[in-house]
Amino acid sequence: MEARKGNLMGVRNDIKVLDATIRDGGLCNNFEFTDEFVTELYKVNIKSGVDYMEFGYKASKNLFRESDYGKWKFCNEEDLRAIVGDNISDMKIAVMADVGRCDFKTDFLPKNESVIDMVRVACYIHQIPAAIEMIEHFHTLGYETTCNIMAISQANSDQVEQALEMLCQCNVDVIYLVDSYGSLYPENASALAQTYIAAAEKMGKKVGFHAHNNQNLAFANTIETLSYGVSYLDATIQGMGRGAGNCAMELLLGFLKNPKYNLYNLLYFIEKYMLPLKEDGVVWGYDLQYMFTGQLNRHPREAIDFTTQNRRDYAEFYKSLLDND
Amino acid sequence: MEARKGNLMGVRNDIKVLDATIRDGGLCNNFEFTDEFVTELYKVNIKSGVDYMEFGYKASKNLFRESDYGKWKFCNEEDLRAIVGDNISDMKIAVMADVGRCDFKTDFLPKNESVIDMVRVACYIHQIPAAIEMIEHFHTLGYETTCNIMAISQANSDQVEQALEMLCQCNVDVIYLVDSYGSLYPENASALAQTYIAAAEKMGKKVGFHAHNNQNLAFANTIETLSYGVSYLDATIQGMGRGAGNCAMELLLGFLKNPKYNLYNLLYFIEKYMLPLKEDGVVWGYDLQYMFTGQLNRHPREAIDFTTQNRRDYAEFYKSLLDND
Repeated sequence: MEARKGNLMGVRNDIKVLDATIRDGGLCNNFEFTDEFVTELYKVNIKSGVDYMEFGYKASKNLFRESDYGKWKFCNEEDLRAIVGDNISDMKIAVMADVGRCDFKTDFLPKNESVIDMVRVACYIHQIPAAIEMIEHFHTLGYETTCNIMAISQANSDQVEQALEMLCQCNVDVIYLVDSYGSLYPENASALAQTYIAAAEKMGKKVGFHAHNNQNLAFANTIETLSYGVSYLDATIQGMGRGAGNCAMELLLGFLKNPKYNLYNLLYFIEKYMLPLKEDGVVWGYDLQYMFTGQLNRHPREAIDFTTQNRRDYAEFYKSLLDND
Repeated sequence: MEARKGNLMGVRNDIKVLDATIRDGGLCNNFEFTDEFVTELYKVNIKSGVDYMEFGYKASKNLFRESDYGKWKFCNEEDLRAIVGDNISDMKIAVMADVGRCDFKTDFLPKNESVIDMVRVACYIHQIPAAIEMIEHFHTLGYETTCNIMAISQANSDQVEQALEMLCQCNVDVIYLVDSYGSLYPENASALAQTYIAAAEKMGKKVGFHAHNNQNLAFANTIETLSYGVSYLDATIQGMGRGAGNCAMELLLGFLKNPKYNLYNLLYFIEKYMLPLKEDGVVWGYDLQYMFTGQLNRHPREAIDFTTQNRRDYAEFYKSLLDND
């Protein structure tokens, strides 16, 4: 085990906080945020010291119809600019591109014509070669890049090692550990983080962590992995994100000691924009059905269905999950 | 740093799970549980493999009027027996006795005349001598004893060291680390746990952990401290407990690998008894106001008031907490 980096009182200047509310939260409301919501979130993220704001996906318009989703599924340049102008702030703009679901060769401008700063390439571990092809393309266009290897709790150690080796040879800037199923315990998460860091540091790359809250461990896993040297930290306001949601931004900013981060503006935003969203029926967050899929290391899709159907028969649902195995 | 004990796949036979739902949860509803609720909880705890069930406090009737509270504030022998008979199960019965708020010399029978197995003595760190007096009394009566040092996040290292030294010289069986304010991060909690364990193990004593969920870390801190050798683990059904509540029993039993623990019966209990309790307006659980007091390492009383008043002005509340400092 490597030693922890920094301590609970000090500032780690390598830390970057990324707000993924529109992107992961968009999975809860079909990306149908009002322009006011997104504009105010942009402003509050800047005031809170957030380093990156992810606006959504760059999804393929051949695979997904624009009329079926809110605009943040596609992140057209003009829609981004309608919110951020030329983004004269210090906060950087990120979008996500899924392997196999993004027309990456046609849908991205060269960086110097775009307000986007960073493209995050999301893939499963068997898609690393496809991810690298995209990463090299985005790198050539001038973007910062990340590779977000999803569902890492289902990969075996050999796969992880090989994936890291391949990624370390490419031009990616940040390699993300993604606990898609909220299945990792702090002990797993920090061990994996150390494996990533050992590989990445040699090549001058950074490591990020993206948590899900299925077992109420999103924040814990985030701060545990950060203590071992993870520096890119994803969070969403009130943990808004698919299923059980993510690491809550308010918990993370309250934990970080760098005075550039502050909570006040975020709290006003929560009062004015997040509480009404919940009252309008947008649902996310820890509940038993997500705990089951987290404990069982499974995709949350059945738990999301259970939630959508307003079911309360937890025991029957749990039994059905075990029957499927 | 000592090594972790055991691993994520194996069984640690030293682990004991204690259900504190009636005792810590009683702080949410003035201990006014129906007899049916308590009886069914007793049965479900047995079926779930829980090792100890804490029924409530043995509060002084000179300080508290019996008519002002539900019966589990006092845990009269006849009330316990009305639920558990002679308790022919393998699960043990615990009650809590607060230093300074318990007539310990008059209110306890000798162990062989009581269904109570364990008395947990709760104190602040400056009350250790008073706690030891009580512990020795209960030990002489024949009970297992614990010392639950509350609000440990406000004690300094010298105090902790001295308290452990004194306790290790007395007849207490288990020394509990109690994160009353939900203020510890996994890194703090596991460091403290290792200090406790180093002191306790030499004298053949065990260490316990009681978490609060102010920063959504109750479960994380519980499993982190257990991984370093803590063996007595407090949890409550759905985390029911004062303010932000405690470590959720369902998360803990889902984590532990010992086949004696199982979830099904607990899930039926939640459906039938816990959901109605919430629908009747009993409130507990993580929310921003508790996060603030956890982050600030403070008693949650102002956050509980904020909750009771149904306030939603989180930013103003946060500001007022900082003004008080």
